[in-house]
Amino acid sequence: MAEDKAKLISILQGVKLKSGKSYNEIAEQTGLTNVYVAQLLRRQAQLKPDTAVKLKAALPELSDHLLNEMMKPPVRSYDPNLIQDPTVYRLNEAVMHFGESIKEIINEEFGDGIMSAIDFYCSVDKVTGVDGKDRVVVTFDGKYLPHTEQKSEHMVSKKKLPGSQ
Amino acid sequence: MAEDKAKLISILQGVKLKSGKSYNEIAEQTGLTNVYVAQLLRRQAQLKPDTAVKLKAALPELSDHLLNEMMKPPVRSYDPNLIQDPTVYRLNEAVMHFGESIKEIINEEFGDGIMSAIDFYCSVDKVTGVDGKDRVVVTFDGKYLPHTEQKSEHMVSKKKLPGSQ
Amino acid sequence: MAEDKAKLISILQGVKLKSGKSYNEIAEQTGLTNVYVAQLLRRQAQLKPDTAVKLKAALPELSDHLLNEMMKPPVRSYDPNLIQDPTVYRLNEAVMHFGESIKEIINEEFGDGIMSAIDFYCSVDKVTGVDGKDRVVVTFDGKYLPHTEQKSEHMVSKKKLPGSQ
Amino acid sequence: MAEDKAKLISILQGVKLKSGKSYNEIAEQTGLTNVYVAQLLRRQAQLKPDTAVKLKAALPELSDHLLNEMMKPPVRSYDPNLIQDPTVYRLNEAVMHFGESIKEIINEEFGDGIMSAIDFYCSVDKVTGVDGKDRVVVTFDGKYLPHTEQKSEHMVSKKKLPGSQ
Amino acid sequence: MAEDKAKLISILQGVKLKSGKSYNEIAEQTGLTNVYVAQLLRRQAQLKPDTAVKLKAALPELSDHLLNEMMKPPVRSYDPNLIQDPTVYRLNEAVMHFGESIKEIINEEFGDGIMSAIDFYCSVDKVTGVDGKDRVVVTFDGKYLPHTEQKSEHMVSKKKLPGSQ
Amino acid sequence: MAEDKAKLISILQGVKLKSGKSYNEIAEQTGLTNVYVAQLLRRQAQLKPDTAVKLKAALPELSDHLLNEMMKPPVRSYDPNLIQDPTVYRLNEAVMHFGESIKEIINEEFGDGIMSAIDFYCSVDKVTGVDGKDRVVVTFDGKYLPHTEQKSEHMVSKKKLPGSQ
Amino acid sequence: MAEDKAKLISILQGVKLKSGKSYNEIAEQTGLTNVYVAQLLRRQAQLKPDTAVKLKAALPELSDHLLNEMMKPPVRSYDPNLIQDPTVYRLNEAVMHFGESIKEIINEEFGDGIMSAIDFYCSVDKVTGVDGKDRVVVTFDGKYLPHTEQKSEHMVSKKKLPGSQ
Amino acid sequence: MAEDKAKLISILQGVKLKSGKSYNEIAEQTGLTNVYVAQLLRRQAQLKPDTAVKLKAALPELSDHLLNEMMKPPVRSYDPNLIQDPTVYRLNEAVMHFGESIKEIINEEFGDGIMSAIDFYCSVDKVTGVDGKDRVVVTFDGKYLPHTEQKSEHMVSKKKLPGSQ
Amino acid sequence: MAEDKAKLISILQGVKLKSGKSYNEIAEQTGLTNVYVAQLLRRQAQLKPDTAVKLKAALPELSDHLLNEMMKPPVRSYDPNLIQDPTVYRLNEAVMHFGESIKEIINEEFGDGIMSAIDFYCSVDKVTGVDGKDRVVVTFDGKYLPHTEQKSEHMVSKKKLPGSQ
Amino acid sequence: MAEDKAKLISILQGVKLKSGKSYNEIAEQTGLTNVYVAQLLRRQAQLKPDTAVKLKAALPELSDHLLNEMMKPPVRSYDPNLIQDPTVYRLNEAVMHFGESIKEIINEEFGDGIMSAIDFYCSVDKVTGVDGKDRVVVTFDGKYLPHTEQKSEHMVSKKKLPGSQ
Repeated sequence: MAEDKAKLISILQGVKLKSGKSYNEIAEQTGLTNVYVAQLLRRQAQLKPDTAVKLKAALPELSDHLLNEMMKPPVRSYDPNLIQDPTVYRLNEAVMHFGESIKEIINEEFGDGIMSAIDFYCSVDKVTGVDGKDRVVVTFDGKYLPHTEQKSEHMVSKKKLPGSQ
Repeated sequence: MAEDKAKLISILQGVKLKSGKSYNEIAEQTGLTNVYVAQLLRRQAQLKPDTAVKLKAALPELSDHLLNEMMKPPVRSYDPNLIQDPTVYRLNEAVMHFGESIKEIINEEFGDGIMSAIDFYCSVDKVTGVDGKDRVVVTFDGKYLPHTEQKSEHMVSKKKLPGSQ
Repeated sequence: MAEDKAKLISILQGVKLKSGKSYNEIAEQTGLTNVYVAQLLRRQAQLKPDTAVKLKAALPELSDHLLNEMMKPPVRSYDPNLIQDPTVYRLNEAVMHFGESIKEIINEEFGDGIMSAIDFYCSVDKVTGVDGKDRVVVTFDGKYLPHTEQKSEHMVSKKKLPGSQ
Repeated sequence: MAEDKAKLISILQGVKLKSGKSYNEIAEQTGLTNVYVAQLLRRQAQLKPDTAVKLKAALPELSDHLLNEMMKPPVRSYDPNLIQDPTVYRLNEAVMHFGESIKEIINEEFGDGIMSAIDFYCSVDKVTGVDGKDRVVVTFDGKYLPHTEQKSEHMVSKKKLPGSQ
Repeated sequence: MAEDKAKLISILQGVKLKSGKSYNEIAEQTGLTNVYVAQLLRRQAQLKPDTAVKLKAALPELSDHLLNEMMKPPVRSYDPNLIQDPTVYRLNEAVMHFGESIKEIINEEFGDGIMSAIDFYCSVDKVTGVDGKDRVVVTFDGKYLPHTEQKSEHMVSKKKLPGSQ
Repeated sequence: MAEDKAKLISILQGVKLKSGKSYNEIAEQTGLTNVYVAQLLRRQAQLKPDTAVKLKAALPELSDHLLNEMMKPPVRSYDPNLIQDPTVYRLNEAVMHFGESIKEIINEEFGDGIMSAIDFYCSVDKVTGVDGKDRVVVTFDGKYLPHTEQKSEHMVSKKKLPGSQ
Repeated sequence: MAEDKAKLISILQGVKLKSGKSYNEIAEQTGLTNVYVAQLLRRQAQLKPDTAVKLKAALPELSDHLLNEMMKPPVRSYDPNLIQDPTVYRLNEAVMHFGESIKEIINEEFGDGIMSAIDFYCSVDKVTGVDGKDRVVVTFDGKYLPHTEQKSEHMVSKKKLPGSQ
Repeated sequence: MAEDKAKLISILQGVKLKSGKSYNEIAEQTGLTNVYVAQLLRRQAQLKPDTAVKLKAALPELSDHLLNEMMKPPVRSYDPNLIQDPTVYRLNEAVMHFGESIKEIINEEFGDGIMSAIDFYCSVDKVTGVDGKDRVVVTFDGKYLPHTEQKSEHMVSKKKLPGSQ
Repeated sequence: MAEDKAKLISILQGVKLKSGKSYNEIAEQTGLTNVYVAQLLRRQAQLKPDTAVKLKAALPELSDHLLNEMMKPPVRSYDPNLIQDPTVYRLNEAVMHFGESIKEIINEEFGDGIMSAIDFYCSVDKVTGVDGKDRVVVTFDGKYLPHTEQKSEHMVSKKKLPGSQ
Repeated sequence: MAEDKAKLISILQGVKLKSGKSYNEIAEQTGLTNVYVAQLLRRQAQLKPDTAVKLKAALPELSDHLLNEMMKPPVRSYDPNLIQDPTVYRLNEAVMHFGESIKEIINEEFGDGIMSAIDFYCSVDKVTGVDGKDRVVVTFDGKYLPHTEQKSEHMVSKKKLPGSQ
């Protein structure tokens, strides 16, 4: 299945290349974040019906077959060697070195919970620093999810198991 | 910090041992699932104020200092060698061997999303099989979280970044 | 052999896709759990003769050759990268973080033993939480197996080794 | 907890050393396999009440406190570096190199199932080879466990979840 | 040295705890990002002289000795098991699953280069989503660094090596 | 070479399948252990000339070419993922959890040495347990090899190096 | 994509082979470091337009298609087994054994920062040692990057997030 | 136990240091290979009674307690980080890079078998190369062990299992 | 490239097979060690011009093309799974278990340095042990390399960097 | 032993700290490279007698005991987590990404050999780039070692083994 996914990505990248459009331009035309457009074209996200129409408008070479494939729930994955890439490594380095600090601030400001990676937005932006030089801004924006207190009365599946415990 | 956590757990386990109560009995008295009680006494979950009162009633030897410690957001962790334990290995084996099947059924029945491990309940129950023998039932009950479609207009943090992109 | 297995799974998935049936529907028609149906179609379980008849009824496109292949004892396996998939990771996270608690409750309620992953049932269900939202319920139901006390007189193979020890 | 276990093992080994008895002698006096005696004195198995009496008879220096500790369900574990030991490595080499063959013969002679490592006996014996030289015989004797066919009607926990699926 | 660092962090965290201030409050009073304050108190960043004055004002219990220790270049590090923590894992998951997409957008918008993790800012913010729920926003803001074209005439160290090549 | 080996195994397995014989039946006809027959047909052992005649008698479809290939010293190997298979894992679990005990008994009963995995026999047998249920017996029978005391006068290669040391 | 990269590298190496030129000769003709030329021909660096002209002059067999491919931002990567190569291992050994010393000297002479691997030059030179023997000199020359003090007022992306914190 | 071993080694090394003797000198006086002497003083080999007398003569400070400890079967082990040491790495590099060639020559000259690492001698010698420079000669001298053909009639343990197979 | 190497090795092994000569015979005819001949035919060593003539004489089927390929500097490598092979594992076991002892003897007899794996000879010999049985002797003979004292005045590359430090 | 090394390093670093001298200043006064001075004070290199005098002059607080300890051959080692440090990671990244290119240039310019990491110099220098900014220059200068052609007549240890091969 990994091979099928690789082939599909290769075709999708080819369609984008022919279109001459950047991820930002497609994002503009579809109302999506630029990262999400790239995820769609790498089969790391599911294309929704309404968005399929807009994406087809932005990339008219996308066949119905391709659009259908893109509308299936994908198997999310990555090549473990991706960590070798300097761009990805720097992001990983930041996460691991700053991880405990980020966790503690979430605990202080929100409570005992996490930032969801599922109800989640990501974008890459270009800003100008105070020294006038270009800076990359990667924004991770995820819903706060508190760890549930596991009360038996709230565990619906449990209540349906009469006589258990 | 790992050592502090280990010491605290050791003290909490001692309190439980003295009380002579099982996790199930404490669960009964506090209205929590049995697994969650065990997690509280292993500092893998945060004790909430209302529950602190009930837990104190169930385990009167718990000092205020201990209760206060239990009310801090914990650092969730495990010893990687835990996988050697036959009970834990069997669970892990089931997850890895049945994983793709579980994922596909979630996709079919719910859509492109996951079972949350944060808005999540877990319990262990004892039932009698059709052969009259004891069976262990481990229930994982987590909220369904659909993968968000990342529309720029819904990404609040992005809208606040004027002129970006 | 891994390739042969992959090809066979691909064909089996194609048969299911054409049938337009969900795992739940096939489960209903064959009297199996939904997860087990998926395991059969991924060659992670052996198809039994009686069930072969029911499965053929549910998926008439299954050729005799395919049914025969499905009736061989499979080599159970998984791609180690499967852990990258968010659904599988969440399950694994739960097992590792809750593992010691589950073990201790089994010890308290059953004795010194484990939950079998062989005499084992698994199903995925959809329930509605107290907040009215969908929840995924994964049930692991395995026979309790006590660790044997290894008495020489009960070790049949030993008694047949005259003069040993 | 790992440290507590290590200390306890060290004390138990000291008791055995003082007694001057070999594992085989203690096995003889307690009716256990020699490997199981060693497992008890390494806290890798739970001492049962009846056997506690016999073990006390064989090793009178075992205090009640020690016997009580030995009667708790142990956390089974091993040091991953144990694989470096030539004796252990040779066993591991045999398992990995002969593993597929053993699996296939089990499949042919028993069906689609495994040898249990829980309902399991192990002993080490000394025999004389056809060349008159000493040979080590390690016997693994485990119950055959067939992989269950997961029929919904036999999954008791499922039947208690009315309306599920 | 790892132990010395752990002790120092423990003391610094104690000072903060006594002060009753959150990372955000200290950030406000020192003009730093909240994540950077946390990094300083975990010895993952070097305290600069001007900021030492402000930090002393915000946390008067910080002794001169502690401030001096904080002004040394730290050894940046993390416990590899930190990845077990659900908050950190979710960030890591996002980086690995979105990594190639982020790289490609940087290539399109900036050229062949990376986001620095050294000339780098990080903050955690709380925003309200379109559904009125809390969201965590983690911002990574790093200088764009183009991969240098390695021209001999620009390699100063090379020019000083007369006769080389 | 790994591929060549895989192809050869596939052909050998095909010959066995066609013959309709089990490993046990071929073992009976060739005077070998059942595991060893399986090893021969997986190219994990070298076929000896005398045995080649018997094997040809048991499996007449084995061509001379195949027999010749089977008579070469094989490259012994295994797929590291084999450990995922529940049958193999259970064996490995037993070896790792019982390893130190087995080593100590060998030391007590034989001296400072190991069980050879080269001068080694392995068989799988079916016995009936005291509960009347089937049990799998895996026997490892290896020559005891004492660790040599390295005396210079016994090190022949050293004596031939005049003037060394 | 890894395969495409491997094929392209193979073609580029073929062009160089046919030309009969060494990396040093091409470096001389293009004004690049010898290592950088090799990186270009391994697709580990992006060919810049001005240099493309010079490289075409040095290697006239390079087609426009190849030059175009070389002008895309590459995916930087390496085979993890490369560490087996003695030349690469020796370099790695030096980095790991001398790493802390190098870090401390950078801290003393430059401050709290690192040597960039992006704004970076590398060359291999041949010199004659004091014993008259050939020596390999590998020079790493990277821009010094100080770790930024993360002041909120300098974090441009933060200032654009009004009302945050 | 690892700690106990480390302490014992430290004491043994102290005794040797005080004696002012080299491994070669002790080897000369005890009739052992130099490597084996070092192994004894690192508790990687068992001291035999006859040799204990000679070793005591060579190192009179060895107490009876120490000699007794040295006469127990040791747990053979090594620190996995030992591979970092350049001397050990070079040996490992040679084994891995030359391994297949060594195996093939053993197959050609001896048959299908291995060099034992148990019935094994090792020494380190100093010779003068053809260029007049010092060379290190490490000799591995192990008994040739042919892989056994596993004939049932030769498997003594099997013959004692009446009715099996 | 790994594939090209594998194909080339396969062809070279075919040439040797056809010749009917053993590594020892070719070694005799070319004046090389037997291991080195095997390394040449596995492309783990570079064929030198003078030796090419002798090798051609010993293996006349070697085409000029093959000889040319063998004269290129090879990429030295190995399959990490090679460690599974019992022959290679035993060698590795010896290196890791005896490693510290070998290092210490080198330090005592030679000084602070290592045995080179580059200026290095290796051979496999057959000798008869004191018990009249065959023994395998693997000899590693490498130049002693002392760790250099890094004096600035001897670092030629440094002296050419005027004004540095 | 690792602990002893750590304590010694801590004392040596304390001596340097008290002296108020930088590695560069000590290098100047002892005639060593700055990296080598740091290696000496981290016990990664052996102090030679002549240099001991100069080092004592530069750091008069070094006791004779410390100097004696520094004159022993060290066990070279590193903490594997050191790779987390950004400075060390950047160096490692450069080595792995540029490794094949460096190897090929060495092959072209020197032949089939490597850069020694034993007869090796390393220094860190500060230069000013063409943009006027500080740059770090790390120089690796190692003797070129050609892979030996293993001729039997040149293998002295072999010639001493009469009758072998």
